[in-house]
Amino acid sequence: MPVYTCTTTTATLDEKSKKDLAAEITRIHTEINHVPSTYVNVVFPELPTGNIFTDSAPSSVLLINGWAREGHPADETTQLVLDLARASSRVTGLPVENILVVIQSSPARFAVEGGRVLPEPGQEAAWLARNTASDRSGPRPGRPLPQ
Amino acid sequence: MPVYTCTTTTATLDEKSKKDLAAEITRIHTEINHVPSTYVNVVFPELPTGNIFTDSAPSSVLLINGWAREGHPADETTQLVLDLARASSRVTGLPVENILVVIQSSPARFAVEGGRVLPEPGQEAAWLARNTASDRSGPRPGRPLPQ
Amino acid sequence: MPVYTCTTTTATLDEKSKKDLAAEITRIHTEINHVPSTYVNVVFPELPTGNIFTDSAPSSVLLINGWAREGHPADETTQLVLDLARASSRVTGLPVENILVVIQSSPARFAVEGGRVLPEPGQEAAWLARNTASDRSGPRPGRPLPQ
Repeated sequence: MPVYTCTTTTATLDEKSKKDLAAEITRIHTEINHVPSTYVNVVFPELPTGNIFTDSAPSSVLLINGWAREGHPADETTQLVLDLARASSRVTGLPVENILVVIQSSPARFAVEGGRVLPEPGQEAAWLARNTASDRSGPRPGRPLPQ
Repeated sequence: MPVYTCTTTTATLDEKSKKDLAAEITRIHTEINHVPSTYVNVVFPELPTGNIFTDSAPSSVLLINGWAREGHPADETTQLVLDLARASSRVTGLPVENILVVIQSSPARFAVEGGRVLPEPGQEAAWLARNTASDRSGPRPGRPLPQ
Repeated sequence: MPVYTCTTTTATLDEKSKKDLAAEITRIHTEINHVPSTYVNVVFPELPTGNIFTDSAPSSVLLINGWAREGHPADETTQLVLDLARASSRVTGLPVENILVVIQSSPARFAVEGGRVLPEPGQEAAWLARNTASDRSGPRPGRPLPQ
């Protein structure tokens, strides 16, 4: 359900940092927003040095923008962004000054996954139960690539 | 007016799939949200395999995020995301389990195109009439590239 | 605090245009939204020609999507998008018909920078004062790259 877009320059994160950051974002989102990890997407657009500016000069910020369904308790979303920022600094080694985390949201009924409208926060159990039943023979959401 | 951002790995969609998906998104958005097709933008950021994670592992999801003006009827926006998800699976051959479609929005008065603030949903006719008159000698919005 | 994402094809903006556009966006945002320029981020995802479609055909639009904290006066946000669209056309040489500017927002308490939850619009002074004190020995936000 959620999508986290982590924008940086190509010089900022190595393969291990991206993998570890994806894992931490997935873990934290799962814990706080009660979404199974199978539904957490993390995307890394990496731009050439010189295509990200801060204060009108080329910079090396890490900009994390997450989309989640509207309606989660506000204090939990604040906790989510705080935890994400701390974990991002820890696993990447970047100073917290260089990390911005933002959550945006829209109503669950404005989003579709697996062909079905997403459930409202708090209604995940019924939605997931139906999904498991109907998809028993199909791929998991976000089918991992064959390695 | 709208912008659809379709994020995938470079290995996921071929040229024909991107072209067909852009055409389907444009057709469906035009029908449901009553915007002329000339104003529908579709963008394909393609990332290297390994830069998109689902459940902490590299994945091949198609993440479609659309921006539209706030104020369209909620049930029509639900229909929009359902139709977009079905069409996306059909034209790309990807299973629906691998496709997430989300609509985000902000007030029309927080957006400018062709130098003018966008009209509220339902007020398009007057806005478009003025646009046609003033732009008669200029390029169309989103001027297609010379082929 | 804000993030402006300027999406184009690789053929649309040269280095000088990107630098000038980042500077203009930073200047205008700083003036209207009362955020120090050190906190303004501008990102340029450049896609291959053929990965951006308008009206179902490859196009050369400039799509500027800004994120800002919710709660700025609506009329100021309208002024912001109008000024950004005009300046974008002026510094890039692109016709206004090819430029879309959109502002999206979410609550300040759903965003973290420098390890701290962002201030509500109007509460920046106290937040910035504390930041300066605590970060005196550290890098500036968005630490510019060594040149």
